[in-house]
Amino acid sequence: MATVRSSLKQLLPDLVEVVGPDHVLSDPDLKAPYESDWTGRWHGNANVVIRPGTTSQVSAVMGILSNARVAVVPQGGNTGLVGGGVPRGGEAVISLRRLDHLGPVDKASAQVNAGAGVTLARLQAHARAAGLLFGVDLAARDSATIGGMVATNAGGIHVLRYGMMRAQVVGAELVMADGSVVRRMSGLKENTGYDLVGLATGSEGTLAIVTEARLRLVAEPGERVVAMCGVADLEAAIALTAALRNIASLEALEVLDSQAMAIVRGHTGLPSVVAGDWEWYVLMECAGDGDLVAALHGAITSVEGVSEPAVALEPARRADLWSYRERLTESISALGIPHKLDVAIPLKELGLFAKDLREHLHALSPQARPVLFGHLAEGNLHVNILGLSPSDSSADEMVLHLAADHGGTISSEHGVGIAKQPWLALTRSQEDRSVMRAIKQALDPDGLLNPGVLFGLEPYHKT
Amino acid sequence: MATVRSSLKQLLPDLVEVVGPDHVLSDPDLKAPYESDWTGRWHGNANVVIRPGTTSQVSAVMGILSNARVAVVPQGGNTGLVGGGVPRGGEAVISLRRLDHLGPVDKASAQVNAGAGVTLARLQAHARAAGLLFGVDLAARDSATIGGMVATNAGGIHVLRYGMMRAQVVGAELVMADGSVVRRMSGLKENTGYDLVGLATGSEGTLAIVTEARLRLVAEPGERVVAMCGVADLEAAIALTAALRNIASLEALEVLDSQAMAIVRGHTGLPSVVAGDWEWYVLMECAGDGDLVAALHGAITSVEGVSEPAVALEPARRADLWSYRERLTESISALGIPHKLDVAIPLKELGLFAKDLREHLHALSPQARPVLFGHLAEGNLHVNILGLSPSDSSADEMVLHLAADHGGTISSEHGVGIAKQPWLALTRSQEDRSVMRAIKQALDPDGLLNPGVLFGLEPYHKT
Repeated sequence: MATVRSSLKQLLPDLVEVVGPDHVLSDPDLKAPYESDWTGRWHGNANVVIRPGTTSQVSAVMGILSNARVAVVPQGGNTGLVGGGVPRGGEAVISLRRLDHLGPVDKASAQVNAGAGVTLARLQAHARAAGLLFGVDLAARDSATIGGMVATNAGGIHVLRYGMMRAQVVGAELVMADGSVVRRMSGLKENTGYDLVGLATGSEGTLAIVTEARLRLVAEPGERVVAMCGVADLEAAIALTAALRNIASLEALEVLDSQAMAIVRGHTGLPSVVAGDWEWYVLMECAGDGDLVAALHGAITSVEGVSEPAVALEPARRADLWSYRERLTESISALGIPHKLDVAIPLKELGLFAKDLREHLHALSPQARPVLFGHLAEGNLHVNILGLSPSDSSADEMVLHLAADHGGTISSEHGVGIAKQPWLALTRSQEDRSVMRAIKQALDPDGLLNPGVLFGLEPYHKT
Repeated sequence: MATVRSSLKQLLPDLVEVVGPDHVLSDPDLKAPYESDWTGRWHGNANVVIRPGTTSQVSAVMGILSNARVAVVPQGGNTGLVGGGVPRGGEAVISLRRLDHLGPVDKASAQVNAGAGVTLARLQAHARAAGLLFGVDLAARDSATIGGMVATNAGGIHVLRYGMMRAQVVGAELVMADGSVVRRMSGLKENTGYDLVGLATGSEGTLAIVTEARLRLVAEPGERVVAMCGVADLEAAIALTAALRNIASLEALEVLDSQAMAIVRGHTGLPSVVAGDWEWYVLMECAGDGDLVAALHGAITSVEGVSEPAVALEPARRADLWSYRERLTESISALGIPHKLDVAIPLKELGLFAKDLREHLHALSPQARPVLFGHLAEGNLHVNILGLSPSDSSADEMVLHLAADHGGTISSEHGVGIAKQPWLALTRSQEDRSVMRAIKQALDPDGLLNPGVLFGLEPYHKT
């Protein structure tokens, strides 16, 4: 296990030599923005914050730090939700935000190179200017950086059609724990050895620092249609999902429970768009050519227990329908600080999971108020719970165990980080964790990269 | 490095106990089909051939063999092209073909479980019967098995739209070198640790044995149109590629040079479908709704140096156009035994690469006849060379060096195996190979899994 040496100060001149005096931050005021995440839930002292501007600076910095066995927390846009990007206490933070060069769009390959510090919004605008799209979108687009999104395998509402971040990353440049650089940026379809790029993607900064990525872009798919239905229960929602799977242009499929609908309407004043009261609401978007409305109608009418849909074609009306989903987070926050979980459950178990969750939660704490919504196609529910003390983790514990009991995952999109680490063993077997530990030890034998994330703060060495 | 112990015979009773006497083959006649690949190019003696029928049998067999430090060659449908699935000499072959159970299609998640021994053709028919498609197709579909396709990250003509095998594998069950089983078969979007499934995919049997996979299926995309054009040069072909990238329904994009066209027409008697003589021919397919013919015409007419297209809508006419590509391999083989290489080159370098290749080859051997064709969208050329002695590797050597010099890869689809191992260092840096070796050593410390593949037959241990 790495120990942060008290001699880190002795390294400062070497670090300044590499990145310049403006980019080695020791002053508490200057360090502060790097020591807390945006939610304020996670914070820790950084011994020093280093802001390299090039890959070779990252490499040289890691060389210096690894020689001195100084632990490192790599940091991107600092929009993570599980505490993986802020120091636990005493590490050096390496901020990648200055690595913000963005290459020209290669239209023939439909790929682009982006430095780790490029924001998602900037990448999206750049792709659109070339007539193409980037396949991942999420609410933190103005702050979230490509390096962080690769490191955490970010998801979002278009996973259904284009996959998570891993499916977009066709190349990456990695700085390893010892400062060596592995560059795989050709973007070629290449079958020559292990998928180190995919392995680094989603490794949450524990195996390598991502300094650059080559990303695939996709064609504008065509016309868009958004629809919302009420559904009687999750079984009907899942039957609808199966019917919609036949539509190749399906791009997004979200679900909100009646609590979520009531909260977002209560906070925003949005009108009712679906006649009647329903247990759940399903929001769907298709993008393509042909008669999308007919395709959606065909799927919807083939399933029992689904309302007539509200359908929107014009951009402003489509945005109106999306606002029930997109304004939900702010509407919940207006009512208090929710506990937030991010589970996914096999679809055939999803209804039972939701029922059990509400029952167990009521037994645990009658004033607790669950709000369920998420990415239906992947069985991904962002479980928000209002009415609990922020420090009471019993409900979180219950939800994660329940997800595991139903064959689900404890983290579908947010990652493990520090927040979910104690529960990793619920869904990853002993054998599975042994393999992960062996890889960690092989690539970062001194445990310098993001200690505590995934493996906890205990020594993870077998020896 | 693993040494095959002369005491393997002592293990036979234990192996028979696990898999039954019919599935431990020591008789030379029974072993023979497992000792050569289908091309006849690669062969070696198997000490024993073991045919487990369940994952727990694979696990128990690996437990016995790893205890005795016996090296293993996992084998699927035996359709590989780089010698990775047949013994080098003296290993135990574990055939996975009996693991051929195929689960019901889960329509809501659009996923299906397939045992390692399920053939691609069987999977495809199974998906179609449920109204869905499997995104990978290749010529060896009747023999190639899912386990082998995962282990080698198989590609094919639909990579452009759906990605390689790795993009289809949403879960897998892995038997590790020590016999332990890592099961990740939920198919859920899950961000809890390293992507062991993606790491095993394409690892060519050197990290784990794939016993089962959970695979994503896709919707039938709609109507199809196939078109073929002549193009003046590769620069025009690449400009056409850039124009076609705006069509979301683009599904396949192939290229053949004039030699390939002459050979396939000479062998098959197929007529000329494009007026005039052209340096290259581009074959493209779209699948979707809307006016695909207009979209293709729009892209084609936007580029200089491209002929009027031959366009086919009806299935029989579409198959006619595809036959120029699909009957090419048999047409080449009718002229002799070609040297076959499988490179990919960044598109901006592809024209220069083809020019250099022809010049260098002519200088090396005036009677050599290059035939170039492949997957244009990925810059993937299947370089076939006629007129050379099968034992003369100087042209292969030249092509691989030239690919590397142009920023390309030495293997785009076929993998490294035994055949390409000596050239891996051309395109994977020392740092990159060190990381790969560290992973290999961490997961297979005795080097039991598919020795020789990727790392060569030298000891790969640093110690």
